[in-house]
Parts: sequence; C-alpha cells; structure tokens
Amino acid sequence: MGAADWLDWLRRGEFHFMNWLDFFERVDRLPSRAVPMYARICQAVRGGIESGQLPANTKLPTNRELAALLKIDRSTVSRAYLELEKAGLVESHVGRGTFVTQGASGKERAASPPTGPAVPWNEVFSRFSQTAFAMLSRQWAASALDAEVISFAGGIPTQEFFPEQEFREILSHLNRAGQSADMFSYSPSEGHPALRRQLRQYLSEEGPAVGDEELLIVSGSQQGIDLVAKTLVDPGDVVLIEEPTYVWANCIFSAAQARCVPVPVDAQGLRVDVLESVLSRHSAKLLYVMPTFQNPTGATLSMERRAQLLALARRYRLPILEDNFVVDLRYDGMPLPSLRALDADRSAVISQGTFSKALCPGLRLGWLVAPEPVMVRLRLAKRACDLSTNSLAQAVMAEYLRRGLYRRHLELVRSAYRKRRDAMCNAIVRHLGSQVRWSKPDGGLFLWAALPAGLSSRELLSFAERQGVIFSPGDAFFLNGDRQEHLRLSFIQHDEPAIEEGIARLGRALAAYLSTRTRAGRGLPALERGNEAALI
Amino acid sequence: MGAADWLDWLRRGEFHFMNWLDFFERVDRLPSRAVPMYARICQAVRGGIESGQLPANTKLPTNRELAALLKIDRSTVSRAYLELEKAGLVESHVGRGTFVTQGASGKERAASPPTGPAVPWNEVFSRFSQTAFAMLSRQWAASALDAEVISFAGGIPTQEFFPEQEFREILSHLNRAGQSADMFSYSPSEGHPALRRQLRQYLSEEGPAVGDEELLIVSGSQQGIDLVAKTLVDPGDVVLIEEPTYVWANCIFSAAQARCVPVPVDAQGLRVDVLESVLSRHSAKLLYVMPTFQNPTGATLSMERRAQLLALARRYRLPILEDNFVVDLRYDGMPLPSLRALDADRSAVISQGTFSKALCPGLRLGWLVAPEPVMVRLRLAKRACDLSTNSLAQAVMAEYLRRGLYRRHLELVRSAYRKRRDAMCNAIVRHLGSQVRWSKPDGGLFLWAALPAGLSSRELLSFAERQGVIFSPGDAFFLNGDRQEHLRLSFIQHDEPAIEEGIARLGRALAAYLSTRTRAGRGLPALERGNEAALI
Repeated sequence: MGAADWLDWLRRGEFHFMNWLDFFERVDRLPSRAVPMYARICQAVRGGIESGQLPANTKLPTNRELAALLKIDRSTVSRAYLELEKAGLVESHVGRGTFVTQGASGKERAASPPTGPAVPWNEVFSRFSQTAFAMLSRQWAASALDAEVISFAGGIPTQEFFPEQEFREILSHLNRAGQSADMFSYSPSEGHPALRRQLRQYLSEEGPAVGDEELLIVSGSQQGIDLVAKTLVDPGDVVLIEEPTYVWANCIFSAAQARCVPVPVDAQGLRVDVLESVLSRHSAKLLYVMPTFQNPTGATLSMERRAQLLALARRYRLPILEDNFVVDLRYDGMPLPSLRALDADRSAVISQGTFSKALCPGLRLGWLVAPEPVMVRLRLAKRACDLSTNSLAQAVMAEYLRRGLYRRHLELVRSAYRKRRDAMCNAIVRHLGSQVRWSKPDGGLFLWAALPAGLSSRELLSFAERQGVIFSPGDAFFLNGDRQEHLRLSFIQHDEPAIEEGIARLGRALAAYLSTRTRAGRGLPALERGNEAALI
Repeated sequence: MGAADWLDWLRRGEFHFMNWLDFFERVDRLPSRAVPMYARICQAVRGGIESGQLPANTKLPTNRELAALLKIDRSTVSRAYLELEKAGLVESHVGRGTFVTQGASGKERAASPPTGPAVPWNEVFSRFSQTAFAMLSRQWAASALDAEVISFAGGIPTQEFFPEQEFREILSHLNRAGQSADMFSYSPSEGHPALRRQLRQYLSEEGPAVGDEELLIVSGSQQGIDLVAKTLVDPGDVVLIEEPTYVWANCIFSAAQARCVPVPVDAQGLRVDVLESVLSRHSAKLLYVMPTFQNPTGATLSMERRAQLLALARRYRLPILEDNFVVDLRYDGMPLPSLRALDADRSAVISQGTFSKALCPGLRLGWLVAPEPVMVRLRLAKRACDLSTNSLAQAVMAEYLRRGLYRRHLELVRSAYRKRRDAMCNAIVRHLGSQVRWSKPDGGLFLWAALPAGLSSRELLSFAERQGVIFSPGDAFFLNGDRQEHLRLSFIQHDEPAIEEGIARLGRALAAYLSTRTRAGRGLPALERGNEAALI
C-alpha cells in the first residue's frame, strides 16, 4: 500500500479511530523509508483530520502509549506532536493530553460559516454504524493492487471463467423474444417467476424439493444474512457463530447488536460438542454455520456431526442458518446432504445459496430456502429493505439455468479449481515445507494454514508484500482478532504457474521474516505438530 | 379479490393476526355470496391454521366480538365455531374462550414427529419483523387483478414507456464492445465507476456539483432509506416524517424501532411552522421529507418553506433525508432548487434519487448524495447489507446516460403524463363534481382527493371494486391509519380513455356508496369547503 493509497484508504474511513494500533501501524508500513518517522506520524494525523475521521476534540494517544505502540523513542512522538501543534492541528493540555483542535480541518475552515457544519455527523451515527465501523478496522485487504502482485487474498472468482459468451447469447435471445418488459419491470419481492421456477427445479434435483412458498431470491448471500438478522435478531440476542467465520456475517450480526458467541471449528467443521455446552448455558436465537468448505478454514462438517447438530437444534429449538456458498465446488469425495435435507420436517433450517462464487458475482443473485412461517417474514424484510431484486439479472439467470448451462459451467470450474488447489498444495510442500501446518480442502475456495505458534501472519504479510504476494491474515476471521498465526489462501484467482510463483514468493517472505526474528534474538518457537484441531 | 386470491394472500401472511377486523373483514368481501357466512368464517380460520398464520393456542375473538365486528348475528359465529370444533381445529374452554387446537394444522399432523416443529418460529421474530408485519396489515392493495379492473392504486410506471429498444441496442453494444467482464464482476460498494461518472455529470448539470466522495449507487430508493435508517437510527430515536407519507419509509423507520413523529403536510408541503414546535420539544435524529410532488399528496414544498426548513436544520442540527423520487417529472411551473442545493455548506442534507419512477423500476437503481462524513458510513452500511449493486444494470444505465437518452426519455414521459394528469382532473370534474375535494399537482404521479367528512375511502373502495376500478385508500399513509376520507389516485398507469372510464366508474361507485348511506338514514355530512389545509 503506497502512501497515496493509504491516505485514500484513510479518507474512505476504513479504519477505526479508537484503535490507535491499527491507525498508526500503517505509519510503519509506508514504503518510503526516506521520510522520517515523526513526519510520517504528522502525515497520518493530518490525513485523519482532513478526512474528517479525527474530529475536533479527539484525544490522541499519549507520548508513552504511541511510542510503545510503534516501538519508537518517545522523543520522536514529542517532535511529531510539537509539529502538529505548531500547525494548529492539535492542542496539548498539561495533565489532560493532546487533542485535535476545534476547526482544524481545512475544509471546515474554508467552507463553513462561523457556526460550523449544520450537523455534527460524528455524534449521530447509530450503534449499527459504530459497530460495523469498528469491526471494519481489521479489514484492510488489498485495495489498490499492483498488477505484479499475486493475490491470494479475498475469495472472488476472476473473469476468465465468466460465461460471457453464453450471457451474450441469452441477452440477444431475450431481446429478440420480446421479453424485455419482464426484464425492466418490478419483480415480485420473492423473485422473478421464471428464475424461481428454474431454481426450484435445480435445487430439487440437488436435494429435497423446494416448495414455492419456501423460496426467496435475494441480491447475493450478504443480503440473505442481513434479512435473516433483521427477521430474527433483536439487540442483546445471542447469535452463535463459527470461529473462525465469514467476516461480514459476523459484522452484520454484531452491528444488529447481537451478542455473538463463537463455537470453534476443527478439521471436521463446527465442534458440535462445544456447541452443546454453549447451548446449555445460552438461550440462542440463531446459529450461523457454513457446513461445507467453510470460510475461512475450508473444513466440511462431518456426517456424524450434521446429525448431532440437528438433534441439538430440535432439543434446544435452535434456528439454523446454513450458508452453502460453495457447496457446488467439490473437487474430491461424495457430496454430503445439506442440513436442510437432514432436517426431517424442514422446520429448523434456513438454507442459503449464491451464484456469486461458482458463477459470477456481479449479477448479485442468491437465494434463501426457509420453512414457510419464517419465509413469510423474510419476504417482508426483503420488501422493506429494497422491494425486490433487479429483474434484468434474474431474467438472464433464469434462461441460463433453463438451458442447462449452469451444470456445464460447474463441471468446467470444478475441473479448473481442482487443478489450482492441487498446484497450491504442491507448491506449499515445496516452498514452505514444514514451516506451516495446513490441510487440503475437498472443495471451495480457500486453504487455511498456520504459522508456528508465536509468529504473526500480519507481520508475515508485510514481508510478503515486499515479495509481491498477499493473502488474508487470519486474525480477521476471529471474533476478537486475537489469533495471529493463520493465513487464508484463496487458490481460485490465479492459474497454476502464478500459484507456483506466488507460493515461492511467500516462501521467501517467510524465510526473511524468520531470519529477522532470529536476528532479533527472539528465536523460533517449536512447531506444534500433530495438533490438528489447533490448525483450523 | 376472489376466494383463491384471498387465501393466497392469507398464506403469504400479508395480514396481521392480532388484528381480527382485518382478518375477518375479508370474509365479508368474498364475492361468492352463495357460501353462507358461517362457512366463510370456517374457511378463513381453516386457511389461517393451515398456512401456519394462526398457530396453536391462538385465541380467537369471542362470539360477541366477532358478531359485532362482522355485523352479523351471534348464532352465526356460534355455528362457525361449533363446526371448527367438530373438525378438531379449535377448542372451546368455558370462561376462557376459543383456541386453535395444538397440532390442528394438517401439515403438522402429517410431517412432524410427536414433539412438534423444531423451532417455534412465531415466538422468535425480531421487533423489526413484528413491527413491519403489524404495519403491513393495513397494506392489502391490489394483488391479483382482473385485467378488466382499472387500477389507480400503486405508483408503478407501466411498460409502455420503458426504453426497451434503446436498452436492447445498449446491451448489444456492451456485448460487442467486450465490456462483459465489467457487467458480471463485483462493482465497488459505492457503485459501478462508469455509472458514477455519468450520474455525477447528470446531477451536476441539474443542481450543485456532486463530488466523487458524496455519491453512492443503491438498489433503488427503498434501499437508500434503509441504509440511512441503519446509519443514523437507534431504537427509541425520534424520526420526523411527513403525514401523510410514503408507507414503506414509515415502515422501515418504525421497524428500526424509531419513534416516528408526524409533521403535517398541506398544499405548500411540510408544515415548517409545526416542525419548529416539534423540534423545540423533541431531539430528532432525522427528518424524512419529499419536497417535490410528495407521496401521497402531490404537494410541493414552497421556496419560502425550503429556506425556513434549512434554517431550522441548522438551528436544531437536524439531519434531513430529502427523497426526490419524482423531481424530474414536472409538468407545470419552474423547478425549485433541492434542499441540498439550498444547504449552503452541504452539511445537513442527504439527498436521494431513483430511476424507478421516471424510467423503469426493474433495474433497481437509485442513488444517495450525502456529506462526506456520513457518506463513509452509508457506503459501509451498503457493503454490510448486500456488498454492492448488480453490475449488469449499472453498466446498461451508464451507457444510457452517456448517450443522452435519459433526458430525451424524460421529455417523452413528461409530455405523456401531463396529458394523463389533465385527463384525470377533467374526468373528476365531470364524474365526481363537487363530491370530492382535490388539487391539481404540478408533477409526479399522484392526485390526492378527499371525500366529504364522515365518509370512508375503504368503504368506497368496496363499491369501487364492484365497478371495476381501484385506488389506494388514504388511511395507509397516516401513522395511525385514523384518517378515513382520502384517496390516492395514480394518473400515470393508464392512457386518457382508460382514465376517463375509470373515473366514471369511481363516480358510479361513489353514488352507490352515498345512496347506501342515505338509505341507512345516516344522512350526508356537509362538505367542508375552503379548508385547503385539511385537504391534503
């Protein structure tokens, strides 16, 4: 991340100004080492003030705190604060600390009448917004990427497999067939009739039948999670989440002011034994679970645990949201029945799917399948949130399914992604050897790896960036961000040679990281082998 | 609404089972008068049980209550309840009342193990869901419409003006131009870059410049309102709304557990004098206002009041959401500056627009323009709710704007809708004469009319349905649904001959309604002429 990107990132507000470590650790990441540290601190604070992210009267960290945080001398901090004070940006009050000056923002000075802006926005944000904003501070993944950088971060399919040719033909066909009105009118809140028909047929071939009253088309999985949260979760309600889990699910439930209680995941998926003890202590409103090729671990919930989970759901009357975001991307082994399929009377499980991972994300199409009593409410929430999903994308997707192209596409990408997964596994053996622990997922997008205990994937990332490779540091997937040793590597975004090269770079980065630590005299912690459960 | 539609409607849950009047009044509307009343009551209750909407142990109204509600003999209710009891659907307990039997639902009996459904869904819905569901009970407009019925209900543009030909050409062009990847990849949360560029240019030509950091593309206006609510509103916060107002805005704010405080609207729009007295008593988080061609009244906020409103916003530090949903559909007079344009330092107003009304609704495209500090948070809420808006529709719309077709389209629809508005005004004069009070709007979609005091537009609606014309009864637009005398008539959905015919039918319906009342000896209340403020 260059200085310009970093400021841009600051301006976009993607940090949490209460979390000074996050704020200032980026000072340390600025590539231009020619700029002295005190000047970089000034730059950071000035950027924060100008972007409005450090509003008037924000208390900066004390000299001592910031020096400890950045592992620099206190005199460097003093010099930075003095410069800022001379520029009129901050004020020091002995015994109270250093504060952002009223009216320090250039924008404020230039544009506002003497009374200041009409609305003190920073004082009026909801708890939803404050929570989401605070959580976002840990999410700074790859924004402006150099083309030379190989990214294993994120989990977004690349355009090379988008069925552009088929979509082109379908658009021409729909145009010719005079179905345009249908493409531009409101769809019903529950979804475009043709897509609902095709999707019900597809789903009913893959698993238990889906009734017309059980299906809702949504604008992608993320909206599905939001609608479920809106329909079931009140502030203070307990929502059980896997740990680690999908960051934006965690974000939605937390922003809805749920009390998110984590249940650990191991190589067989959700620890159902731990869940049981959690359920015996908490009255939970919902369990959010990814049973197949979980994000970020790639783990799949075993058949035995699926049955146990449903028995628990019945015993504790626990609603389950199962997110089958990559269930179709299986490369090895036999498909397992979904939780919905195992739920004998279809009364406990809300099931979610998406076209964003296996097909393409830009159509923003996903779906919820739910027992009728809750589906009535989910549709209502959909209607309240955005009335209905856009018709054009739904019409295209309906025709794509009707032509049987989706299954053909799945075969294509399964075959391609299987090779990529294998290439990454082989490259890791070659270039990272016994330095990391990992396991080979049977499907999905991600490989989850762990550094030796005591190492930090965030620290590794700064070495990796210099080598031209990035990944998702694992702490973001934990509720409190306190697990430092994991990496999530997406294997779908590059072809085999690029994967080989990227992992080789990662190997060099790890070697450099380890040598720094050795030089720093901190030594190397022993590898904890054989502890499979700790791995994911 | 036929019996099948009605049951379908019941199954969709679009009623509130705590509101027996709403539930049973539909019994009275069933067209097949050959079915005796007691059987119709049985049918209603059975439908409610089978659809899961009347869960086990629901207490039905007492004989006395239901007889009074339906204005029928108590023996008819007794007979209905006896039949239901014989069928095992309800149980009577002397002194306690009549209750839905445990396990009465056929579905439950057939599919569930003896323990009953795993999750008691009716007990786990959030306050958001409960509030939205309760509010929806008043919204039963026109679902399954006979083709012969002329609908002045709703406010949805019809396909006759959709630019299908142009969209076809654009889709072909984008296909040829190899921009498909762009159409199928994720867009950034803030919107597709080409659409953002085109829209900023369009908006900056229409009003003050829109900065890149001030714009967010949303999936239609409804989502814009939801994002603003998420970003600013905590439970218990005061949100000021116009009264009457757009039902689904009211629904979102109420479901977010805001305390909605109404401020009346008259022929010059929002009563700013009343607003001031409200502001002096309440600390408000937000004002939601439609300054131009308000829904449902069609009123436009006068220039003087706009200035007063902004002065109040500054004095009380009041954030304003202005919803300019039809600002481009002006048929008479000069455009007024938006509230955002009048907000000198652009610090108090969030401004919202949409392509759904003037162009077509199925693309689900709208936008928010907001001061940067709040825009950062709005984008974050967008990302949390559905990541981003679908790329295909955005790419099409960007090219449509780039070609200058939107302005041409506006000229076309303005000219057409102006004629329709005039046709409706003329028809009202001819067919309703002095029976209703109304005023001619300068633009938008709606004409707002009032019956003589003491008459109910819901009662008129049942006469109107028999004549083959429907409209939106006005009570739905009031916070407590307690104003009975208004009708909202949409004039954009039919051509001039159909408008003439529809208003003629409405005239006959009104005559029939009035003659019933005369026969019933209730007499006719005097018209309250000259009371312009009471009109809308």
